[in-house]
Amino acid sequence: MRIVLASGSPRRKELLEMLGLEFEICPARGEESVQEGLSPEETVISLASEKAREVSARFPGDTVVIAADTVVCAEGELLGKPRDRADAVRMLKLLSGRSHYVYTGVCVMYGGVSLAEAEATEVRFRAVSDEEINAYADTGEPMDKAGAYGIQGKASVLIEGINGDYYNVMGLPLCRLGGILKTIGVHLL
Amino acid sequence: MRIVLASGSPRRKELLEMLGLEFEICPARGEESVQEGLSPEETVISLASEKAREVSARFPGDTVVIAADTVVCAEGELLGKPRDRADAVRMLKLLSGRSHYVYTGVCVMYGGVSLAEAEATEVRFRAVSDEEINAYADTGEPMDKAGAYGIQGKASVLIEGINGDYYNVMGLPLCRLGGILKTIGVHLL
Repeated sequence: MRIVLASGSPRRKELLEMLGLEFEICPARGEESVQEGLSPEETVISLASEKAREVSARFPGDTVVIAADTVVCAEGELLGKPRDRADAVRMLKLLSGRSHYVYTGVCVMYGGVSLAEAEATEVRFRAVSDEEINAYADTGEPMDKAGAYGIQGKASVLIEGINGDYYNVMGLPLCRLGGILKTIGVHLL
Repeated sequence: MRIVLASGSPRRKELLEMLGLEFEICPARGEESVQEGLSPEETVISLASEKAREVSARFPGDTVVIAADTVVCAEGELLGKPRDRADAVRMLKLLSGRSHYVYTGVCVMYGGVSLAEAEATEVRFRAVSDEEINAYADTGEPMDKAGAYGIQGKASVLIEGINGDYYNVMGLPLCRLGGILKTIGVHLL
């Protein structure tokens, strides 16, 4: 049985490695399209499923494909990756002193069957000064991350706490993924 | 200004490195003694403060000493590091299907002044089968960790979620530590 991670995210790669899985990486190429009017959970399930479907088509054999999609939702706004430094600063000001939610959809395709679930985690930012926001933007960490921060980097000192799965905030809900993989006979422990 | 981490924990070292701090490592030697009748918060503050005091005495100059102590509290029992594999299995069975709390005390000593705080994080384990507990014990991960698990390892698939600071569960509450360091003029961002 071959396992393929349909994502180019270095964080997702690191997390699957932490679980001791042997896998290949084959990111989805397509620009996934978001339908209007979906909830955040429906959005990430839909996007993860599209990615899994696209990559599965390239591996006809005995292959498990794992895909995921993450969005950040703050004050009713869905935040993707920042366009530029100014956009990162805007997003970080929106997150400062407030709770927001991170949603990750994960989809596992195997033998033509698709299993997809979404997980939500609340993230509580402390009040962050403009000086700190600028210093954090200068680290470059915000640029390739939804919501303009990485919980596993220097933003760790800005985050008072979370409620939910930490790995979901990094881009892959590991406990939930373990449950899905178990149903198709892949045991992580 | 010299910074010294008064701990031999590889996790704490990794976390300070993640923050970009330059520091030396000098673990406390003494066996700290726990007073009877203290709350978990008082216990970890007392132990972290003892470690900081011991190591500070060895660095008379312009030195910031950071010490920490972590305990796990489940069903009213304080769990330290397991004595052996059987003890690890016993602890993991106690955690299965329940919430428990992880307490870390952090103490910063600088210029004769000691600043110490404690942070609590709730950790929710899913129901874990005996087979999984044995498989996890076989990884060797439980042996050097309070409560017999590491949230940053394969136990990630056993943990549904947490409420609080993830890094506190790893052994160092980074947001709180950042606040303490700021008061003595060390800015992490």
